[in-house]
Amino acid sequence: MTWLDLPADTGFGPANLPYGVFCPAGGRPRTGVAIGDHVLDLAGLTGDPVHATGSLNAFMAQGPDAWAALRSMITTWLTDPAHRERVEPHLLPRDAVTMRLPIEVADYVDFYSSADHAENLGRMFRPGSPPLTPNWKHLPIGYHGRAGTVRLSGTPVRRPHGQRKAPPDPAPVFGPSLRLDIEAEVGFVVGVPSRLGTPVPARDFPSYVFGVCLVNDWSARDLQAWEYVPLGPFLGKSFLTSVSPWVVPLAALSAARVEPPARDEPLLDYLADGDQPWGLDLTLEVRLNGAVVSRPPFARMYWTAAQQLAHMTVNGASLRTGDLYASGTVSGPEREQRGSLIELSWNGQEPLTLPDGTTRSFLEDGDEVTITATAPGADGSRIGFGEVVGRVQAS
Amino acid sequence: MTWLDLPADTGFGPANLPYGVFCPAGGRPRTGVAIGDHVLDLAGLTGDPVHATGSLNAFMAQGPDAWAALRSMITTWLTDPAHRERVEPHLLPRDAVTMRLPIEVADYVDFYSSADHAENLGRMFRPGSPPLTPNWKHLPIGYHGRAGTVRLSGTPVRRPHGQRKAPPDPAPVFGPSLRLDIEAEVGFVVGVPSRLGTPVPARDFPSYVFGVCLVNDWSARDLQAWEYVPLGPFLGKSFLTSVSPWVVPLAALSAARVEPPARDEPLLDYLADGDQPWGLDLTLEVRLNGAVVSRPPFARMYWTAAQQLAHMTVNGASLRTGDLYASGTVSGPEREQRGSLIELSWNGQEPLTLPDGTTRSFLEDGDEVTITATAPGADGSRIGFGEVVGRVQAS
Repeated sequence: MTWLDLPADTGFGPANLPYGVFCPAGGRPRTGVAIGDHVLDLAGLTGDPVHATGSLNAFMAQGPDAWAALRSMITTWLTDPAHRERVEPHLLPRDAVTMRLPIEVADYVDFYSSADHAENLGRMFRPGSPPLTPNWKHLPIGYHGRAGTVRLSGTPVRRPHGQRKAPPDPAPVFGPSLRLDIEAEVGFVVGVPSRLGTPVPARDFPSYVFGVCLVNDWSARDLQAWEYVPLGPFLGKSFLTSVSPWVVPLAALSAARVEPPARDEPLLDYLADGDQPWGLDLTLEVRLNGAVVSRPPFARMYWTAAQQLAHMTVNGASLRTGDLYASGTVSGPEREQRGSLIELSWNGQEPLTLPDGTTRSFLEDGDEVTITATAPGADGSRIGFGEVVGRVQAS
Repeated sequence: MTWLDLPADTGFGPANLPYGVFCPAGGRPRTGVAIGDHVLDLAGLTGDPVHATGSLNAFMAQGPDAWAALRSMITTWLTDPAHRERVEPHLLPRDAVTMRLPIEVADYVDFYSSADHAENLGRMFRPGSPPLTPNWKHLPIGYHGRAGTVRLSGTPVRRPHGQRKAPPDPAPVFGPSLRLDIEAEVGFVVGVPSRLGTPVPARDFPSYVFGVCLVNDWSARDLQAWEYVPLGPFLGKSFLTSVSPWVVPLAALSAARVEPPARDEPLLDYLADGDQPWGLDLTLEVRLNGAVVSRPPFARMYWTAAQQLAHMTVNGASLRTGDLYASGTVSGPEREQRGSLIELSWNGQEPLTLPDGTTRSFLEDGDEVTITATAPGADGSRIGFGEVVGRVQAS
């Protein structure tokens, strides 16, 4: 137990200790750890310059032994009253600081690992064909996104312009996207780089991946539908990807590990789960203008983040500190578990009705979307992930 | 005319002045300009710390006025004999220095803008369908690649492992790629960042793009064919992308500008060429183990780099210093103008015969591929781009 007074049901209890980068009023950015309604200023408390760089990258690059050592020290500082006098001056109210993007993003990869999501989109976009492409259950499909437009939660979502063309239209037209959507995802942050030419096995996942954040991969479905054959999504995604300010260390998720779903196809050796697989029992919550519209279950993801890491590097591609890879939209089998509006409104055929009586198939200007998540913590508490939020602006 | 003694037919005459990053023997990396067989050490000559950072990024970020001012000064230093005494000590033989990757790559985007290439691949991969997808002549198709595996020319090409599955096979198999290929491309390097939410018009291309390099986008066709539907190429490309060490400034290419080919479809306003379009008359040359196998003509590219820039940002996506975008494989209409082996060997049906009597459909271990290019220079000389080279290693 901590000597701090924590709010009831805080997701930021002593079993969590997520890392972020914050600016105190008038101060320079530094690394902190969220605890209850406070942030612990690691730069101030430790004096270690690695926590004063303005991103987590330098600390993440130190590797898992350093991560474990610091986590252990922070736990001691926050639970042993003998440290209270020294620590307390470095606790700042979280509502008095400004958060920054926690990592310098190196490469950004987006996977597509929810079978429910992929089947839903397959049914909508390729009616008459099998909902999953033949490769889907043999490898975690993924693609590279734009790292330079990964931004902090709260960044305004300017409605993108671009080309769209419905199949019957004679030619494409240009204008603001009419089908602006969300994708509720979970992001994995690489801490330790790997060498070009040397694959990273799935079992080494916790030696390379530092932690977990929330991702909203904003999507313009009309731009995407017209552009994506044959080389994949580009402008339909690249205008903005929002991430939550707090990175939950992998070490906080030991009690959240679960068996992944049964696999329908035999796995090639490099994708084997091993005896300690990395299914994770996170429950996401998606709110649209304050109303909960979905609770996607991450435990159902067909491919785990460890398998994604092994796949991403099996061709010898190297990792860099700050690489971010996202799970793909998290959807469950029920309507109220779908992680995108195109699924929730079934491509606009079944619009959502919000509590104010208005309906939505896609996002309107002024709409605000908030994604949160929780997971079981080792001490019986809930691990919180904070939130990733964005409001749509006309452009 | 320069006071230096230049080799006949050097591509690095005074009308070129390409930038690179080099290490003198035992020294730290710094920015240099190639002139004949020498490199001019800008860090040593100017004392400006911007040239001692180990990449071109800081200088590129200074923008087009700074680029023009330095180019003008270098021209004076190398042509006015009054400067010879001061300049000469900072000229090093190029064969005595080690080149480095010239830029810190931010995002890497690969386009697909040769109609001949796209038609060839469409005919091979989608027989019975129109060779170009319906969107191809309305927008420059592109996708994001892996920035972290963009490496300097000369980096060994380790044959990637991965999944492949020919359509009749019952399940995928894992192993080294059997269809390792090249893509001869031209790369454009962004110097000046842009703001999120603000598209960059095509006419502003020379205000943002610093220069041009050569790119070999190594490709594992068997991995790519199995993985790429529906989200595009991933592991078939991400193991390595090689770039040439010298970045030719846009200012060196004024005499290479040509009209792009006639367009078959009306262009949306944001893709209009304007009255000073950016077709570029580069001729590439591809050598396999020393034998020229192709001379792809860049002037035939359907989409120009200015149009690619406008498209890439029209949704509000921002640019960063160090963004690299490549043209896509450069192919012409003739067999000996094709920029990839899959086209040159027509998917293995018409293997190439090399001068040593061996045949190739795809790359074998030990094969070396070298891509060079030239363009007309303003003084009647040829502008050279150096080379991008790589040798295949078993793995």
